[in-house]
Amino acid sequence: MAYTAVELIELKRDRKTLPADGIEWFIDAYTKGTVPDYQMAAMAMAIVFNGLEPDELAAWTAAMIASGETLDFSEIPAPKIDKHSTGGVGDKISIPLAPLVAACGVAVPMMSGRGLGHTGGTLDKLESIPGFEPRIDRARFGEILRDHHLVLAGQSDTMVPADRKLYALRDASGTVASIPLISSSIMSKKLSEGLDGLVLDVKTGSGAFMDELEESRELARTMVGIGAKSGVETVALITSMDQPLGNEVGNANEIRESVDVLKGEGPEDVTELTLALAEVMLELARIDGGRERLLDAIASGAAFQKLKDVAAAHGGDVSVLDDTSLLEVAEHEAVISATEDGIVSRCDALTIGLAATRLGAGRERKEDDIDRGVAITLAAKIGDEVAKGDPLAVVRFNDEEKWSGQRDKLASAWSVSPDAAPPRDLVLERIDTSQI
Amino acid sequence: MAYTAVELIELKRDRKTLPADGIEWFIDAYTKGTVPDYQMAAMAMAIVFNGLEPDELAAWTAAMIASGETLDFSEIPAPKIDKHSTGGVGDKISIPLAPLVAACGVAVPMMSGRGLGHTGGTLDKLESIPGFEPRIDRARFGEILRDHHLVLAGQSDTMVPADRKLYALRDASGTVASIPLISSSIMSKKLSEGLDGLVLDVKTGSGAFMDELEESRELARTMVGIGAKSGVETVALITSMDQPLGNEVGNANEIRESVDVLKGEGPEDVTELTLALAEVMLELARIDGGRERLLDAIASGAAFQKLKDVAAAHGGDVSVLDDTSLLEVAEHEAVISATEDGIVSRCDALTIGLAATRLGAGRERKEDDIDRGVAITLAAKIGDEVAKGDPLAVVRFNDEEKWSGQRDKLASAWSVSPDAAPPRDLVLERIDTSQI
Repeated sequence: MAYTAVELIELKRDRKTLPADGIEWFIDAYTKGTVPDYQMAAMAMAIVFNGLEPDELAAWTAAMIASGETLDFSEIPAPKIDKHSTGGVGDKISIPLAPLVAACGVAVPMMSGRGLGHTGGTLDKLESIPGFEPRIDRARFGEILRDHHLVLAGQSDTMVPADRKLYALRDASGTVASIPLISSSIMSKKLSEGLDGLVLDVKTGSGAFMDELEESRELARTMVGIGAKSGVETVALITSMDQPLGNEVGNANEIRESVDVLKGEGPEDVTELTLALAEVMLELARIDGGRERLLDAIASGAAFQKLKDVAAAHGGDVSVLDDTSLLEVAEHEAVISATEDGIVSRCDALTIGLAATRLGAGRERKEDDIDRGVAITLAAKIGDEVAKGDPLAVVRFNDEEKWSGQRDKLASAWSVSPDAAPPRDLVLERIDTSQI
Repeated sequence: MAYTAVELIELKRDRKTLPADGIEWFIDAYTKGTVPDYQMAAMAMAIVFNGLEPDELAAWTAAMIASGETLDFSEIPAPKIDKHSTGGVGDKISIPLAPLVAACGVAVPMMSGRGLGHTGGTLDKLESIPGFEPRIDRARFGEILRDHHLVLAGQSDTMVPADRKLYALRDASGTVASIPLISSSIMSKKLSEGLDGLVLDVKTGSGAFMDELEESRELARTMVGIGAKSGVETVALITSMDQPLGNEVGNANEIRESVDVLKGEGPEDVTELTLALAEVMLELARIDGGRERLLDAIASGAAFQKLKDVAAAHGGDVSVLDDTSLLEVAEHEAVISATEDGIVSRCDALTIGLAATRLGAGRERKEDDIDRGVAITLAAKIGDEVAKGDPLAVVRFNDEEKWSGQRDKLASAWSVSPDAAPPRDLVLERIDTSQI
């Protein structure tokens, strides 16, 4: 090996190009523990400042992927397309989206994460279905995918170990805020799934990881670029996350809302974003029919049936999907009411997401437990007219002490004005290889 | 404690000011091991990019000093003044300088380091005096200083432990190249000695740690600033290190040349730099007489006697100082000769320093042993006229294999031209608090 760790760190520190074989060696040695945490922390901080060029980033991502096992389902005769969201509040989109496109001929080998901070996680929501087990081995993963063209699993310990190690290190060393490191972390996990195409839902706004449109755009462009260099066609939609998606923020209640979408009875915004992302997935899969085909799969019940089949394959009790009133609900109920007449000008995703987490619906620390019955149901969103006393939200909770600590904070999420603009468009931009 | 390590790293990453109590906590926790290496490595890299403001730097240095024991010899009725050099080739200046000013009424509680890379170390040179023991305990340190107003010790393990730990980490994490970190490392060690004043010899040129004058100037200004904020008057001389200081590069041979200086028979450059730094030390000590007083101390033999007294106090056999032909000399001798007639236009300090180290006079790694008899004696320096066949240097070595590997490299240190400018001035600039 022609490089030492210090030489490579110094190259990046001095804004010189890291050679591809140097990156490969560095990440492999880090995964094995030969390069210690402090050298990777110094490298990560140098990357925070000096970034990674497209070729460096492709090599970095490839080295992350090579650190562990990868999936290959080329024997399944269907295009493998997945979706990743950068995370938001009320973002249950994967749950209606994946069955919908699977019902239209796409194979979706989805691996999802858990919630942390103000954002929820798809796995936590799915586990509101009694018996649902996302932790399955490789063989079972393949079986479910083959049988249903859809699997809704947790991330595997044997895949991208370099990312798991680096992610924890970045969290503890102030090196999270780096578009190349965020991008390679996301893309290495997704590209390990052996995909033919990938759609990214890059959120922007108060409830998103990135608040500023220009930053979200750069993240989207960077990830689309990695996809292109890795030979996996990738399209990103930049979508607004100023207010929560849909009316439900929590876990079990988000399953209920997802079922509504699959039955054609979901709120307009969740339905619209599900369809927009699904259209891109069909496009990437070279499957014709577009929105009409998707609406047919909803109308025929095929999409909903796909969710039930896959949930059952994961061990879930699907009676709660047929009758969502059977889903867990927290004991107590309280209402946040409007204190004046007017139009809702603000329904802040971050504030609502944090309140939900602190009521127990999410995790402040990785090791926290989730209370799946905690639910915030929004009764008024941006652009809605309200009269003084009208409900803004109905909240279900189990812990009265937590509620008394969150009531005022949650109420502060809404602003009501005599006059207010409607919310900005949900889908703001599309970024594909023609834009990078 | 109001801060977490990650918050402090992020402040520096985002170019915000670190609070003094945050710095104090961070360095204390790092010294104790509560803040792990990877967090300090990330912080150090953030400092490489964003620097430290003067107030941050003063707090950082104070926290480093507070990590260990400090000296206090206020009961000794003499001004305590020390000197630090950023390191060069043939830089034996401390050895004649300290006894010279001690003979004039200054107390010098000097703690020196060992050589590494192309630069030699004062301790290694002093250990060429048989029996000389620089590793003494606190009580003996105080005794020698009280008795002789001079002590020539090694660095103590109980002082500035944060610096020892951080220095090793920086070396292994690509974070050496930072003027604030270099400055606080040097100044924390010196300011722990309980000084009334400090003179810094900041080298610039090929054989120096910093090649460029502007960088050396910034290092000097930064260290003078730390001294000022810490209440220890500090003056820096920026001096050229294009070619080695004096004619001797090695260890035992540098002791011989130091004795020559103390007897008034030393080479002009070493004598001149010794006197220039000594004048500043007298000035900082508020001792009158300047250069004349210094020349008197040489002429009277008082300065040389001081070296002998202190060497004896450290257990050294001073007969080698009275008769320097008794000092260790390596077995073999070889000569590097001029290959053409002309004027020496280059006598490169870095090349000569590296050759000396590789012949055994210095250390490539910290754990290497030193061969004290290895010597490069320069016969021609910049501006000297030479004829083809004239010696450029006489080399003494023990390992013939090493010599055959170094001969051509060492010879490449000289350039001879039909016409050449004399060397630039030795003392280029003085930086004191009026310049910062």
